[in-house]
Amino acid sequence: MNPINFQVAKTTGRLARAGVLATPHGEMLTPTLTVVGTKGTVKALTPEQLRAVGVQAVLANTYHLYLEPGDEQVAAAGGLHQFMNWAGPIYTDSGGFQVFSLGAAYGEGGVTKFAATGEQNAKTMAAEGVVKLARIDDDGVTFKSHLDGSEHRLTPEKSIAIQHNLKADVIFAFDECTSPQADYRYQVEALERTHSWAKRSLAYHQASSPAEEQGLFGIIQGGRFEDLRRRSAETLSAMTGLAGFGIGGSFSKADLGASIEIVSEILPRDKPRHLLGIGEPEDLLAGVAAGIDTFDCVAPTRMARNGTLYTRQGKINIFNNRYRSALRPIEEECDCYTCRHYTQAYLAHLFRSKEMLAATLASIHNLRFIVRLLEEIRQAILDNNFSTFQTAFLTDYCRH
Amino acid sequence: MNPINFQVAKTTGRLARAGVLATPHGEMLTPTLTVVGTKGTVKALTPEQLRAVGVQAVLANTYHLYLEPGDEQVAAAGGLHQFMNWAGPIYTDSGGFQVFSLGAAYGEGGVTKFAATGEQNAKTMAAEGVVKLARIDDDGVTFKSHLDGSEHRLTPEKSIAIQHNLKADVIFAFDECTSPQADYRYQVEALERTHSWAKRSLAYHQASSPAEEQGLFGIIQGGRFEDLRRRSAETLSAMTGLAGFGIGGSFSKADLGASIEIVSEILPRDKPRHLLGIGEPEDLLAGVAAGIDTFDCVAPTRMARNGTLYTRQGKINIFNNRYRSALRPIEEECDCYTCRHYTQAYLAHLFRSKEMLAATLASIHNLRFIVRLLEEIRQAILDNNFSTFQTAFLTDYCRH
Repeated sequence: MNPINFQVAKTTGRLARAGVLATPHGEMLTPTLTVVGTKGTVKALTPEQLRAVGVQAVLANTYHLYLEPGDEQVAAAGGLHQFMNWAGPIYTDSGGFQVFSLGAAYGEGGVTKFAATGEQNAKTMAAEGVVKLARIDDDGVTFKSHLDGSEHRLTPEKSIAIQHNLKADVIFAFDECTSPQADYRYQVEALERTHSWAKRSLAYHQASSPAEEQGLFGIIQGGRFEDLRRRSAETLSAMTGLAGFGIGGSFSKADLGASIEIVSEILPRDKPRHLLGIGEPEDLLAGVAAGIDTFDCVAPTRMARNGTLYTRQGKINIFNNRYRSALRPIEEECDCYTCRHYTQAYLAHLFRSKEMLAATLASIHNLRFIVRLLEEIRQAILDNNFSTFQTAFLTDYCRH
Repeated sequence: MNPINFQVAKTTGRLARAGVLATPHGEMLTPTLTVVGTKGTVKALTPEQLRAVGVQAVLANTYHLYLEPGDEQVAAAGGLHQFMNWAGPIYTDSGGFQVFSLGAAYGEGGVTKFAATGEQNAKTMAAEGVVKLARIDDDGVTFKSHLDGSEHRLTPEKSIAIQHNLKADVIFAFDECTSPQADYRYQVEALERTHSWAKRSLAYHQASSPAEEQGLFGIIQGGRFEDLRRRSAETLSAMTGLAGFGIGGSFSKADLGASIEIVSEILPRDKPRHLLGIGEPEDLLAGVAAGIDTFDCVAPTRMARNGTLYTRQGKINIFNNRYRSALRPIEEECDCYTCRHYTQAYLAHLFRSKEMLAATLASIHNLRFIVRLLEEIRQAILDNNFSTFQTAFLTDYCRH
């Protein structure tokens, strides 16, 4: 009945674990990254290029696909797998984060998973002329499309109905994603709504026929308040029928690991845990150490399109003058298509010339970097060697 | 000594022919299109994607690569093949067309190979605020970079030296590309310069060491004047040492075939003929009928990026509303990657969402359309069936 089957292969340290996550569209070896393909395409890459990089799963955004081309259009095409030509596992988020990030809590383009100070955030919002586009009540959220200003309403039932149309393997309960600036009182109120919405999402999901082909993950919220994170994990753990758990909302970067640990200690060990919207190398290591199995993050591909490239010695900016004549790959030891066939000088030329191939080649490298890092993390866990690996990686990566 | 070997496999009708053009980087079955990769990349595609489409050769632009990243940078990288990861044949043009098209004769973006009326052109130039950026004398051309306004000078010797650095298999003599509005007197003057420059290009090429790895094509000019085209073909035919011929300048679309025939009748039969910058389906047919072996044209990829797609029943614009829900490929009978895996509805979604994959998938289809058309043209020539094929294709293609 549960279409998602998760087997822990090995746990090392307190919480880090390697596993196998089986979906109706194939298995994923965890920990792993679900690569963000917001509008049903991972920007600048074909599915075959993703597969060659070692990508196992894709995460698409419910909010964007609902607005364009519309979830019914995707359903008519046979669902996202067929529409976008990706035969592997697909996740869709609940739409909650986008509804709020494009409205109440953040300015567009300034969306962040980590809390700025209240003052910084207020300044950013003022500078960006942020207008609150979302109105929330206990039943759901009314918001305006960032595309054309038209008014729409999402409820837990509607979010799940949209996700049923999109037909991803893993879908998420509708949740309220609060501002990092929200005070404790508001966080409590929002958390209660999120829990009530999780219940309604689950009930609607179980009552609908596609439930056997899609697994529903509940989302743990609670912001940066330990007691609320704990309460959220306890409440969702008690909901039988959830196929796994997402951990959402904002964190303080320094406390990321600690905040997740609190949650992982409570969640059932035989269900997968997904950290929503976070995936820089140092965060992946902290997340895995704290018990996370899957991640999603736009950083590798977004940074690639801006010319920021990962290396084991830290990030580089390919626009730096020194790369114009550099006749070596981004990383000598990298096994990606880009590093095997192209020099930094060629990439520097493509970026300066604003050629589309720049984004493709850079995305391939950055994704391969992250995928390979996660492959090595998995192997280190299996070898009971994770903590040594973590230290060694960070020593090189953060030194520069 | 001549690195370009051309064998005519079959001639049908008066001038249409199928052949094999051998270069230091492999053979091309002709007639064929050399796909334009202006800055050392065919926009939105990897070399592997080009190969999968059946593309045999690439043409890069000397003018652009001289300005960015610089031909010496390309030479340091081992030449264009290595720089851009394309192991097959590469052509570079002489830089002449760009120097003039970005300066004296046309407005940028309004570059055309076909003559508008004098009045139309004057209007266009006035509307686009065209400033003459190029100054010509008998020795060469002084021009300003369209990138930063810096002043540069191209002479025949300099053009060949740059092309030696780029290391393409086929390079072109420096020529003066006149405005379609130029009068007969000016055309004569320009043609004499082009012939004198061809001689100087050849002398410089033969005196330089890479000559054994690169074949030099002379360029026939003469605009829309039959006697000048004839004179140009005769003059260049007499220059021993040229590996082939380019036919440049502007044409009247209606007379394209007739203008080329005049030239082909004169040129030596055992040397390849390249039509510069023209490659719409109807032009390919007219060109092949008139004795052309190779073409280059930005149209298939440029149109693809704008959402204009070839079909055997004429071009379609994927932005048309009807395609939003069209769950069929661009062409049912097309064997390209895009048509085998994606619907018009998905492409319409990608274009409306401004996703980069739109350009990739559309370019693959349009290039495959042209490559397949040329493969079928070649087969029709071998089968002695070209004229029937031409009529049948045009009947479908131009009916809509």
